[in-house]
Amino acid sequence: MMNIKRLDKVIENMKRHQLEQMIISNPASIFYLTGKWIEAGERMLVLYINAKGQCKLIINELFPLDDQPYLEKIIYNDREDAVKILASLVEDKKLGIDKVWPSHFLIRLMELKHGITFVNGSPIMDEVRMIKDAEEIKLMKEASAINDKVMAEAIEVVKQGYEEKKVCKLLADIYEKYKTYSFSFYPLIAYGANAAEPHHSSDSTMVKDGDSIILDIGGFTNGYCSDMTRTVFYRKVSDEAEKVYNLVLEANRKGIEAVKPGVKLSDIDKAARDVIENAGYGKYFTHRTGHNIGVEVHEFPDVSSVSHLEAKPGMIFSIEPGIYLPGKLGVRIEDLVLVTETGCEVLNAYPKELQII
Amino acid sequence: MMNIKRLDKVIENMKRHQLEQMIISNPASIFYLTGKWIEAGERMLVLYINAKGQCKLIINELFPLDDQPYLEKIIYNDREDAVKILASLVEDKKLGIDKVWPSHFLIRLMELKHGITFVNGSPIMDEVRMIKDAEEIKLMKEASAINDKVMAEAIEVVKQGYEEKKVCKLLADIYEKYKTYSFSFYPLIAYGANAAEPHHSSDSTMVKDGDSIILDIGGFTNGYCSDMTRTVFYRKVSDEAEKVYNLVLEANRKGIEAVKPGVKLSDIDKAARDVIENAGYGKYFTHRTGHNIGVEVHEFPDVSSVSHLEAKPGMIFSIEPGIYLPGKLGVRIEDLVLVTETGCEVLNAYPKELQII
Repeated sequence: MMNIKRLDKVIENMKRHQLEQMIISNPASIFYLTGKWIEAGERMLVLYINAKGQCKLIINELFPLDDQPYLEKIIYNDREDAVKILASLVEDKKLGIDKVWPSHFLIRLMELKHGITFVNGSPIMDEVRMIKDAEEIKLMKEASAINDKVMAEAIEVVKQGYEEKKVCKLLADIYEKYKTYSFSFYPLIAYGANAAEPHHSSDSTMVKDGDSIILDIGGFTNGYCSDMTRTVFYRKVSDEAEKVYNLVLEANRKGIEAVKPGVKLSDIDKAARDVIENAGYGKYFTHRTGHNIGVEVHEFPDVSSVSHLEAKPGMIFSIEPGIYLPGKLGVRIEDLVLVTETGCEVLNAYPKELQII
Repeated sequence: MMNIKRLDKVIENMKRHQLEQMIISNPASIFYLTGKWIEAGERMLVLYINAKGQCKLIINELFPLDDQPYLEKIIYNDREDAVKILASLVEDKKLGIDKVWPSHFLIRLMELKHGITFVNGSPIMDEVRMIKDAEEIKLMKEASAINDKVMAEAIEVVKQGYEEKKVCKLLADIYEKYKTYSFSFYPLIAYGANAAEPHHSSDSTMVKDGDSIILDIGGFTNGYCSDMTRTVFYRKVSDEAEKVYNLVLEANRKGIEAVKPGVKLSDIDKAARDVIENAGYGKYFTHRTGHNIGVEVHEFPDVSSVSHLEAKPGMIFSIEPGIYLPGKLGVRIEDLVLVTETGCEVLNAYPKELQII
């Protein structure tokens, strides 16, 4: 069903940006507005919206869609030029383009509409989607509550001594028990030195005594993403690892404490980063502190040193500081937080105290 | 390692198309030329090529890449404007753009280079990639030989009476036994009436006596895709299903017989389609006869009624006619074929005779 409140917010934001028409092609944005997730592959799928409130979905006949109020469907087949159909809707004025629209469609549209200006229209959607409404907050909480349970079971699985990639596979079955049929991203299970590699893919490594074990996992439940990281140690923990763990935990807590409306996201990043930098480990915290999340696992904006937007009630983002000592170990602790009117609410409840398994 | 022969073919084809410079962003095309598969996510990854033979890869520092002869690396970080770096390389003349490049990069590049014309450059890559070289043919044969073995094991798994989606999961383990660590597409296992749905996702349906069972499976082995479909019947087969099966088998064989250099792909489609149409089932064969395949599972061009290109030695495509009787059953039989100098070679050897399991 077309979500009229969300559509109104988008149109209001178009006016604020002085844009009278735009197209949306990201399946996540189309899902956000229509409640339907359609993967059209190579075929053009475009939602045309204008400031007058017209909303038209150009869709290939291969993807049947029930009629919806407030949404006009324009159905084409493989023998038709879909971009030409779109061009016939576009008025002779500036047009916002979805950032992910494949270029060959845009090039064809430019041929057909060569008088007009094309701009990146995605900031308009991003700004609306970054503030979650009540329904989304409910779904995000449910997804994270499931992720807490899955984390507990995943750690039990790791205890049995499986190789990393086997744990990833078993995770699919665990999520399914909780009616979560896909990952929000492919899980990262990393043992020992692998946990220090920023782009490690889980492989056939077996766990060894003293290993740090990173579990970075998330599911896609009813259209919304969870994402949480815990680090545990296998059978024993070295003094250095314990020190690193407690620093990351402190950084995670300081980051969360800093979250309230009006605080710049870069200051939230700083609150977490300072803990690690002041202890001399700054160069081993190699990534941003967090990212917004919702229908997609990485949404706009980031929580990073260059992200000067202020936190606003309804934003949901991760706080995930880490320390990675190459060849030795990695520790990351990640929670999702919801910005409230007065501070924030942490969506993950799985314990964070140092755990030896 | 940069594949100089392939790069030369691309440059030669650029000259034929009177294009002096182009960018490539599709990871599959970059892999085809460099041997490296890099998934850069939201970050810009672009290979700039010009007719003078310059070849420059603009890549984020997060994705380390060994030095390669004939390939200049231009490394940027998250604080830099990657499109601006690209713009500084682009000459003031027509530029070919990769069809899948996200539009926001193109819009930014148009701002920076507003005098020049942008065209879809992908046909140039597509035309080169559609003719497989000896190394590719060897890898495609190996991938399909593995797919034959996996099909045999998959049918044994179906016999045990698992639900559709459980078979899909078990398939991952079977492929792994043959050093194939990902699917080339998510497998389709469909029982009975589900086999008649063009967009069925494998679900918790259990197999019943008399069901048609479609197994459409493929793996991604050493960078190359396999793709094969077989249809078998569970415990018994109705007269109608047997008739449909034999028609589809005949269509598959007639399609394959039609394949030789110089024959239009649309005529190959027709050879398969005529068998089904002449028997009165034309409206139940709802899709094209096939598609080229290689590094990607769907490559240019299709084997369809509107595809008037001629078959050429080195092309590898699928021949996959089907008949789908809504609510009842579906049958599809798919093989990959390699066009040779005199005809074609079928890459799949798993038997096609009607099989009751």
